Amino acid sequence: MPFTRRDFTRDLASLAALGLAASAVPDLKAQSPTKKVGYAIIGLGRIADLHMQGIHESPNAKITALVSGHRDKADKYATKYGVPATSIYTYENMDGLRNNPDVDAVYVCLPNAMHAEYTIRAAKLGKHVFCEQPMDSTVADSHAMVEACKAANVKLMIGYRCHYETTNLAAIKLIRSGALGKVQMIQSAFGFSCGPKEWRLTKALGGHGPLFDVGIYCLNASRYLTGEEPSGFSAYAYSDPSDPRFKEVEENLVWVTKFPSGITASCATSYGAPTFGYYRVYGSKGWLQVDEAFSYQGLSLHAHYTRDAEKEADRTVDLNQPNLEKIPQQFVNEANHFTQCILTNKTPSSPGEEGLRDMKYIQQIYKSAGIEMG
Amino acid sequence: MPFTRRDFTRDLASLAALGLAASAVPDLKAQSPTKKVGYAIIGLGRIADLHMQGIHESPNAKITALVSGHRDKADKYATKYGVPATSIYTYENMDGLRNNPDVDAVYVCLPNAMHAEYTIRAAKLGKHVFCEQPMDSTVADSHAMVEACKAANVKLMIGYRCHYETTNLAAIKLIRSGALGKVQMIQSAFGFSCGPKEWRLTKALGGHGPLFDVGIYCLNASRYLTGEEPSGFSAYAYSDPSDPRFKEVEENLVWVTKFPSGITASCATSYGAPTFGYYRVYGSKGWLQVDEAFSYQGLSLHAHYTRDAEKEADRTVDLNQPNLEKIPQQFVNEANHFTQCILTNKTPSSPGEEGLRDMKYIQQIYKSAGIEMG
Repeated sequence: MPFTRRDFTRDLASLAALGLAASAVPDLKAQSPTKKVGYAIIGLGRIADLHMQGIHESPNAKITALVSGHRDKADKYATKYGVPATSIYTYENMDGLRNNPDVDAVYVCLPNAMHAEYTIRAAKLGKHVFCEQPMDSTVADSHAMVEACKAANVKLMIGYRCHYETTNLAAIKLIRSGALGKVQMIQSAFGFSCGPKEWRLTKALGGHGPLFDVGIYCLNASRYLTGEEPSGFSAYAYSDPSDPRFKEVEENLVWVTKFPSGITASCATSYGAPTFGYYRVYGSKGWLQVDEAFSYQGLSLHAHYTRDAEKEADRTVDLNQPNLEKIPQQFVNEANHFTQCILTNKTPSSPGEEGLRDMKYIQQIYKSAGIEMG
Repeated sequence: MPFTRRDFTRDLASLAALGLAASAVPDLKAQSPTKKVGYAIIGLGRIADLHMQGIHESPNAKITALVSGHRDKADKYATKYGVPATSIYTYENMDGLRNNPDVDAVYVCLPNAMHAEYTIRAAKLGKHVFCEQPMDSTVADSHAMVEACKAANVKLMIGYRCHYETTNLAAIKLIRSGALGKVQMIQSAFGFSCGPKEWRLTKALGGHGPLFDVGIYCLNASRYLTGEEPSGFSAYAYSDPSDPRFKEVEENLVWVTKFPSGITASCATSYGAPTFGYYRVYGSKGWLQVDEAFSYQGLSLHAHYTRDAEKEADRTVDLNQPNLEKIPQQFVNEANHFTQCILTNKTPSSPGEEGLRDMKYIQQIYKSAGIEMG
């Protein structure tokens, strides 16, 4: 019997009952039609475009302000989403958001190393903060983000979009159902060949290399797939000394992780090679694989497991996302979730503390690989 | 333009010119029709059955003797392959092989921990030795195997069947051609859920756990795919203390490897989970994946890479082996190669020294995982 998208949607309500980590359970309760949460978008790059589409599709959310250094880009999005010219800010005058009653919260969509500065700045303006991951380039700054949001009594959600993405949730659900037996090992990779002029290659904007930027997806997946916190890491890194792209950040990094229950994971990340994102979970009774696991669209899950206990035939599960959804649903789900947290005064499923945890693990992995994280 | 089996076969002759490691190049020269090398098979289990099929299909090889503790099994194969009753031996009287003029060489197909004893015994009888891998359970015994064969002036070939298997060779060829650019990272896994009564679970017969028995395929692949020798390992292992299968050998093991050029590898092996064998190679311009990479049949290669230098379109390569070849070709290729080495007095492409190298690396991996190899 194939496991379909409809099965999955129907069963979403029972996810919590399966003992999932809170951070992996989306809040898909019916949205109130009466109140909309207003968002200011800070930074108008590629990821911001996707988040704006998500907010626009979310019934209780709307884009009410834009912050950018490029007025032409801001004007284009203002027209598209009906943002008044008086609600377009620069980085210099964005403190004006404080007194803009249409802005309840901000989305920080800036380069990685700028996350702390703008999260803390927005918190001090009294706005809730959705911040893209990775959280920030140092553990200390990530900690400061959590503290600043607490002090200002605003919510902080980190953009772990896979926690709100249906194929990843289906994988977690299959694992927690026991279908694969006892989970034994995980393998994962994610990376890409980075263009020579990208901000990611500089410490000043990128913060660190591929582990920090994309390897974090494998790291975080190993946590949400197991529902456990790692108890050790061992890693190797390499940068081609003749490649001018890798003067400041590492090129490739592989690591192994162990978890308290005995589960082990082996992962790889790269800025030097097109490393399509995936993970495999090996259990005592079967395995599953998610391809394009960390992509916006086109994810697919394949699982195969024995059902000897019930004397049933082996079972194969295939769940393929349509490649061409109009808008990647995970961005809508994220907007829904954060909006509901604000409206009902709840803590987001992926709060600042979740990002801080990954930052501490990343620090441990870099240390094992002999890289000074600073 | 798809890369087909025919392309591959046609290009086999040029493999050496591409700078492949000697151990990965099969010797497929035309066989002499006049002389046949006679083989005694020691141990008549599953792998022996496959090797006998390979020898039987090889034009200059024939099965001329059998050594087994089970007379009924020996009689069955004797009838099938035309071996006279006088050439059926037990482990007690197999020294009679010395004076059997029809036996030039032996195939050692016994449980892993018995390889050294029978290889050395056969060498002392003046017979060339084909020994299944893993070579033996200690570095010292593996070394002794090499020395014994040298002293007796007989050849020693270790059964690295992937070195003689067309899909693996196609992967190596693609890598060496530069199609994937500079190789950056490798991921691989191989394992299975071991039945509770298998000899593999005991130190006395299995020697060690899944790293030694099947993880060695990932280890060896990382070497033949890169053409380099590892310069370091880091590993974690785990055995479920409540699982009676893992009293003597490890259940799961993951490791990372670094190579002198900077290539890194992350690998996993298991006796607790069905871990289908595969590898992925990530290069600066593309990647390839071989599924069922270490299986007897049904291997498939998928590669995708950019060809910007030539202003050509990106290229996808798919090479799928038919699932139902009558006899797994890799066993025929092994028999051809060893036979030619004997007939032309050449050193096998996968000599004892190749097995000894892996044993030393396995010792390092176990040490890193905190397992005493002995």
